[in-house]
Amino acid sequence: MNKYFAEFIGTFVLVLIGCGSAVVAGSQIGFLGISMAFGLAVLVMVYAIGNISGCHINPAITISMLVAGKISGKDTVGYLIAQFLGGIVGALILYLIASGKADYSLAANGLGQNGYGELSPMKYGIGAAFLAEVVLTFIFLIVIFGATSPKAPSGFAGIAIGWSLAIIHMVGIPITGTSVNPARSFGPALIVGGEALSQVWLFLLAPIIGGIVAALVWNYIIKPKET
Amino acid sequence: MNKYFAEFIGTFVLVLIGCGSAVVAGSQIGFLGISMAFGLAVLVMVYAIGNISGCHINPAITISMLVAGKISGKDTVGYLIAQFLGGIVGALILYLIASGKADYSLAANGLGQNGYGELSPMKYGIGAAFLAEVVLTFIFLIVIFGATSPKAPSGFAGIAIGWSLAIIHMVGIPITGTSVNPARSFGPALIVGGEALSQVWLFLLAPIIGGIVAALVWNYIIKPKET
Amino acid sequence: MNKYFAEFIGTFVLVLIGCGSAVVAGSQIGFLGISMAFGLAVLVMVYAIGNISGCHINPAITISMLVAGKISGKDTVGYLIAQFLGGIVGALILYLIASGKADYSLAANGLGQNGYGELSPMKYGIGAAFLAEVVLTFIFLIVIFGATSPKAPSGFAGIAIGWSLAIIHMVGIPITGTSVNPARSFGPALIVGGEALSQVWLFLLAPIIGGIVAALVWNYIIKPKET
Amino acid sequence: MNKYFAEFIGTFVLVLIGCGSAVVAGSQIGFLGISMAFGLAVLVMVYAIGNISGCHINPAITISMLVAGKISGKDTVGYLIAQFLGGIVGALILYLIASGKADYSLAANGLGQNGYGELSPMKYGIGAAFLAEVVLTFIFLIVIFGATSPKAPSGFAGIAIGWSLAIIHMVGIPITGTSVNPARSFGPALIVGGEALSQVWLFLLAPIIGGIVAALVWNYIIKPKET
Repeated sequence: MNKYFAEFIGTFVLVLIGCGSAVVAGSQIGFLGISMAFGLAVLVMVYAIGNISGCHINPAITISMLVAGKISGKDTVGYLIAQFLGGIVGALILYLIASGKADYSLAANGLGQNGYGELSPMKYGIGAAFLAEVVLTFIFLIVIFGATSPKAPSGFAGIAIGWSLAIIHMVGIPITGTSVNPARSFGPALIVGGEALSQVWLFLLAPIIGGIVAALVWNYIIKPKET
Repeated sequence: MNKYFAEFIGTFVLVLIGCGSAVVAGSQIGFLGISMAFGLAVLVMVYAIGNISGCHINPAITISMLVAGKISGKDTVGYLIAQFLGGIVGALILYLIASGKADYSLAANGLGQNGYGELSPMKYGIGAAFLAEVVLTFIFLIVIFGATSPKAPSGFAGIAIGWSLAIIHMVGIPITGTSVNPARSFGPALIVGGEALSQVWLFLLAPIIGGIVAALVWNYIIKPKET
Repeated sequence: MNKYFAEFIGTFVLVLIGCGSAVVAGSQIGFLGISMAFGLAVLVMVYAIGNISGCHINPAITISMLVAGKISGKDTVGYLIAQFLGGIVGALILYLIASGKADYSLAANGLGQNGYGELSPMKYGIGAAFLAEVVLTFIFLIVIFGATSPKAPSGFAGIAIGWSLAIIHMVGIPITGTSVNPARSFGPALIVGGEALSQVWLFLLAPIIGGIVAALVWNYIIKPKET
Repeated sequence: MNKYFAEFIGTFVLVLIGCGSAVVAGSQIGFLGISMAFGLAVLVMVYAIGNISGCHINPAITISMLVAGKISGKDTVGYLIAQFLGGIVGALILYLIASGKADYSLAANGLGQNGYGELSPMKYGIGAAFLAEVVLTFIFLIVIFGATSPKAPSGFAGIAIGWSLAIIHMVGIPITGTSVNPARSFGPALIVGGEALSQVWLFLLAPIIGGIVAALVWNYIIKPKET
């Protein structure tokens, strides 16, 4: 059970810190700061809970690991539940904190939810949004498979994985706010509701597709034969 | 004795660099730069003095470690005294340097002290400030317990802990200036005095609560059973 | 074959993330953010594919390694083909994503291609551009030879190499947009065409000169004798 | 001899990248970017040449190591000569590159030289400048002694030392442009000449005082007894 709780806490931290940096401090730290907050939240949680649960804290990673044969079906279910709960609770606590500013409004300021078209930060269309989420999640998973492979230098995976999420955000925030993580998208969208919730399907679907493609490409094309 | 002196120097560096970046360079480097200065000050001190004192340089960490049974009562007292002295001396030296600019005034520019309500950088109320300090310190301590646990990759704890403090600041600076550390808050508040000092109780209390909750959650819920 | 595919994927990631950060988010994250995106793309790929192909993802590195006697002629050819293909495909996918914004135009916004004179981001002349590309690639390769030498701390090379590319961009972006990598330059230039393509020779030639000089300086002057 | 050449190259890189980021890109990347360029230039050179020369690339470090009994008198002389030459050549190459922009002028734009009073970036007086340079160099050397001590985690020293220089710049740039390194200050000042050169004494003297104090404090107060 403690690995499920680790996944819950990890996803909670990712949403509270990542989305929190956007909602609370985005006007000050910009897209670069938000990118670092998301990426480094993963970096630190890999060192904090990586030895307990593997620190997926992302359903696209867990499903990609299932495809790659690295996690059981039972654990997959437990991980997904923990991750979605963590994302929802993270968004709830963020809402409690954010509404401590007199001029905060859920409708106007949101909770760092993702979006496309009119809800895209810089008005990217649905096609570009879908392609970006698939490709960026693919890159994220390639880094994860490579950096955690037995031949990669031991201990450095958290640094590689965390910074990869940061640079993925540096490209993706103008397009969709960057999801590459269904649990990170679902929590804020659920609480914000309305149009944000009606668009959340893309951020459930596209990252999972990108993760599955990466598992296949890694296993059948890139992976060193001896591993 | 040298571990107490290490805690003194470490807290001195944290306040001089962290608060110094805000007071001297805040208008140039923004909240992102200040966040990095605070976090990376801890990162570098973990490698400098971690093998001497454990590099707590934060009473909330020391008290959380006491609750987790990882430090003696006697050392707790020595650490706390060293940390508060380090914070005060760091703030004093910062005042000496900052006042070398003709238009600096202690009342107007301060020393990077924390605050809520009217003294919050972006006017967050006392409830949000208290909640944010508890939750952010909780996250900080979870990372510390996890990254220093025997199963975590050896040597990387400083990277995880330092960057976790940086991203905690990326969320927390608009709310309270981010404390999560009573000694970092007390030094500047003592010298600035007035309203800043009258608010310092929150930054003594909330981080300690967050740290104690983290010690209990880590020990009884997350920690791997075999450790 | 899987090492060639690793080089293809690595160069694809470098161009999509590095040039992508400039094209999609440059107005938000600035030259500092773009520098981090390029550098950290290399950092993460070193951990992802370094144990498969060595993660050159840059013809100037591969040719420098050939001069230093660290790669065979046959692999050199395979690596160069994979790198140029990766750069072209990366630029193509970036174009697909970028054109999802209604006001994007290839002529006006480009794909992060390099340039000198009138095409230099801050209008540096051809002489300064050539000198900068030679010197900056020289520095990049000195870091690569040093950080991957047998006496350097094991595992840290990716951190050193990645951050070195980031700081090289911090200096070089105003001058040429920073190449130090013919494959990173050729892909975007090919698709943008016109003047960008007519200037690409400098970004094929200067980085290779810088890389060859570094191989000679490292081997005959700096390298520890016992290695 | 190769360790002297390593010191030459290392100091050359520090000045070209650090001062270069200020001169070429300072208006774009700000004080935060310049701080990262200086700090990370040291981080990467520690991994590139640390196993050859120890990567001092700073006379204040070499003299502090002499006081701490960690380097011979003969090597001290060789290191200092190599470092000052590296700083001068770095400033010269930077001048060649910078003057490739039509509106660059040595008098108006400089080469990233340090200054106090009227030449301080934000007009700090000589007293604050001297105190800041002593205290910041003291902190830098404490990190160096601690992170390279036998009990510190192996391999991480470069990360700690590099980031410590970055955060030292985050505080110090508004005050003096941040020296903490006589060779980094002397090269640009020599070529710029005039008032910049007349102020360089402070940046030779104060960092050396800070380094000597750190050597004494480390050896007699902080250092673990068993080491």
